[in-house]
Amino acid sequence: MRNPSLPLAVTLGEPAGIGPDITLMAWSRRIREGLPAFYVLGDADFLQKRARRLNLNVPIRQVEPGDTVDVFTDALPVVPVSIGLDDLPGEPSPAAGKAVVKSIEQAVEDVRSGVASAIVTNPISKKALYDVGFTYPGHTEFLGALAARFGGDRRQPVMLLAGPDMLVVPVTVHIPLKDVPSALSRELIVSTAKIVARDLRERFGIANPRLALCGLNPHAGEGGTMGREEIETIAPAIEELNAAGIIATGPHPADTLFHERARENYDCALAMYHDQALVPIKTIEFDEAVNVTLGLPFVRTSPDHGTAFRLAGTGDARPTSFEASVRLAAALADPRTID
Amino acid sequence: MRNPSLPLAVTLGEPAGIGPDITLMAWSRRIREGLPAFYVLGDADFLQKRARRLNLNVPIRQVEPGDTVDVFTDALPVVPVSIGLDDLPGEPSPAAGKAVVKSIEQAVEDVRSGVASAIVTNPISKKALYDVGFTYPGHTEFLGALAARFGGDRRQPVMLLAGPDMLVVPVTVHIPLKDVPSALSRELIVSTAKIVARDLRERFGIANPRLALCGLNPHAGEGGTMGREEIETIAPAIEELNAAGIIATGPHPADTLFHERARENYDCALAMYHDQALVPIKTIEFDEAVNVTLGLPFVRTSPDHGTAFRLAGTGDARPTSFEASVRLAAALADPRTID
Repeated sequence: MRNPSLPLAVTLGEPAGIGPDITLMAWSRRIREGLPAFYVLGDADFLQKRARRLNLNVPIRQVEPGDTVDVFTDALPVVPVSIGLDDLPGEPSPAAGKAVVKSIEQAVEDVRSGVASAIVTNPISKKALYDVGFTYPGHTEFLGALAARFGGDRRQPVMLLAGPDMLVVPVTVHIPLKDVPSALSRELIVSTAKIVARDLRERFGIANPRLALCGLNPHAGEGGTMGREEIETIAPAIEELNAAGIIATGPHPADTLFHERARENYDCALAMYHDQALVPIKTIEFDEAVNVTLGLPFVRTSPDHGTAFRLAGTGDARPTSFEASVRLAAALADPRTID
Repeated sequence: MRNPSLPLAVTLGEPAGIGPDITLMAWSRRIREGLPAFYVLGDADFLQKRARRLNLNVPIRQVEPGDTVDVFTDALPVVPVSIGLDDLPGEPSPAAGKAVVKSIEQAVEDVRSGVASAIVTNPISKKALYDVGFTYPGHTEFLGALAARFGGDRRQPVMLLAGPDMLVVPVTVHIPLKDVPSALSRELIVSTAKIVARDLRERFGIANPRLALCGLNPHAGEGGTMGREEIETIAPAIEELNAAGIIATGPHPADTLFHERARENYDCALAMYHDQALVPIKTIEFDEAVNVTLGLPFVRTSPDHGTAFRLAGTGDARPTSFEASVRLAAALADPRTID
């Protein structure tokens, strides 16, 4: 699983979105961008049609998983997961849903069986998947469930956003803002931070990771005058983490935690909710941010954007976040390569 | 009030904070930074002591308000508001509270009576002021009350953060995050946006301001699956604004609204709460963001930082945000100078 000569497994993602586009573009830029070998769990015919639509000269070769690294030099290797659909960019069809799910399951299986080093997932359309019985809020939770195949305890998957100069984790993620205060607990903050600290050590090669925790309220509550969660929940979590030997500071006012000088004081920020984490990283690292799932027995990265239906098939999608995801997945699967 | 040859009135702010430091530093950099004339409503003896502590060669001259512009070339003009305290940086004293409040009141009076063009306020310590009977959540609300002296209706002061490449307004401000969903209403969003649109036209010289409204929830609620405020409150407010002839779009997911390419599509963003507005602007424009109060019958700007007690008297405070506040106050008081 940590053999750096193994390729990365790239999932199909929503076929009507930009996943096929950015995968094809990334392969064609593989030398210039220094990308490690990857293969797609997808449909060679479908990808060939999309390549023609984009005027991309990308040879596509259907292969067995074991042959992908050699092929990658000359062609985009595809391990077949049939879609059985025409290429209709921007028009998602529930008919593709089963292939989308199968591609993710197969990627996990490929890492488990030792033919892939890590997983890069293309964006999915949750709405299209709900129609075929998919019941997870997203990729992250589905992968947490699939991780059970590796044996051991149930896993808590943790979403990390990684940019060239910023790592940030939202402690709560895809829930309404009004539910955030009640969803936050000392236990959730502590368990999340412990997973982050462990994976920063083991995957990112940071010997003593420094975590910085945001407050929930304006000015981190300003001594309890604008909210008490900092005093009642976040500060006790930080004490518990420190007692466990983890370097954690805060609660910090979120607005002054993300500018360039402030970031020198920590390795990873823990935000209390989705936008508190996603706003700063997407504001400054929009094209290069990568979504990494921590807490799993395998490495999974993903471009930090959605299906972007209106860009699919147009040539206007940008493969930069996908390329960063590919590079980071390879580096995390082999921590010796992280600088 | 719009005579560009009038000076700006600068308030004392919390004397134990960095207000005196940045004011003195800005005067000494006035030529290099191209700063318009300003005077301090403060204590000449006190400022002289702070200047010596900072090893700054700043001549200070006590003047009548009418004489400040001529003096500014050679000395920092001070119109007396006595503090009657020793210079103890970092140690706020309630004894200074009355002078801090008096300085703000006098600045408003100076604009009203036509001796100053606009107001730049130094950071205050609310805690120190509460001890002398100050009952407002902050500067903005106090200035809203003082605006009544100009006659007319009660004013709704609106906080705008202005950086070189970003304008953003938080619709709710200094309240706990858990109270944000219930504090948001269509009426509040509409009245705030109307003030923003009017002041962008009249003060900033933007003929047809384009407003972009954030959603409240992750992904702006993703069609109601992660919160319904977008559907029930924000979208109806946008419709009402459009019907009133105001260009307003959204609700937009906040995380993809603030990167460089996204900002080309609007002039000012309206965020639903404090951190949603303050995180993006302080992340990228930490040293240059200016706090502007809209909706008042006079122009008021302020550096976008607090008293920073631990930096007071050390020489490590940065005057950049104060200098940007001075330049912007002068430009807003005379809209012809905005480019």
